[in-house]
Amino acid sequence: MNIEFKPIGFVRVDVEDVPRHWRRSELEGTLVINEEYAEGLADVEPGQRIVVIFNFHESPEFSSKLLRQTPPHSDVPTGVFSICSPVRPNPVGMSVLEVLKIEGATVRVRRLDMLDGTPILDIKPHIEVRDDSLD
Amino acid sequence: MNIEFKPIGFVRVDVEDVPRHWRRSELEGTLVINEEYAEGLADVEPGQRIVVIFNFHESPEFSSKLLRQTPPHSDVPTGVFSICSPVRPNPVGMSVLEVLKIEGATVRVRRLDMLDGTPILDIKPHIEVRDDSLD
Repeated sequence: MNIEFKPIGFVRVDVEDVPRHWRRSELEGTLVINEEYAEGLADVEPGQRIVVIFNFHESPEFSSKLLRQTPPHSDVPTGVFSICSPVRPNPVGMSVLEVLKIEGATVRVRRLDMLDGTPILDIKPHIEVRDDSLD
Repeated sequence: MNIEFKPIGFVRVDVEDVPRHWRRSELEGTLVINEEYAEGLADVEPGQRIVVIFNFHESPEFSSKLLRQTPPHSDVPTGVFSICSPVRPNPVGMSVLEVLKIEGATVRVRRLDMLDGTPILDIKPHIEVRDDSLD
């Protein structure tokens, strides 16, 4: 059973050395969304946070040896579903970015941790768990 | 350009009437992960929140008429990238669930908003934006 997605656009960023995680990034860049989806961006506004779902397009193929990996900030091999490694059973990534500006179908963002050319699969509103009655 | 993923497992839940959003859900169910990935769950623990990326497998095909949709709790047509509708350019969903128990390759969870049989694409740690220096 295969599930097929098509990019709705691509990340454009000027540098090659991209921070490893959006939480520790101040890097700015642009989400260039296909014109056909521009209307879907109508309610995205500067100052908002958005969730961007994307494809780790440069990740090597996954193998069972990678079910535990040692993250750069640790020396303990850790289960892949508890870490943010780009090498995963499905190379799907998620970042929370800060919207700076919208122009047509392009979204200027801060906190990038994606490489130039990264295929974007979806943009979603960022929902704070802490708003919830759970907390 | 197509991007292909394979399910790492499926959602099992006993009811058909599933809450619309994890934020307003207390529903319990099970993530049945394929045995081959069990080791990747080694550091997932009860009490944690996890991000589950999944396929909206029952969504109708997307069309340009759906670039703005009126959510159930609103009467204002809103751009698809600012709402949580399951009908999106790529039918990819994201929920933040609460882990109750792990047994082998199954994860018992609360806050489900996914239908029985939903294909799971990834599990990630939940990172609070509010931990960040931004706030």
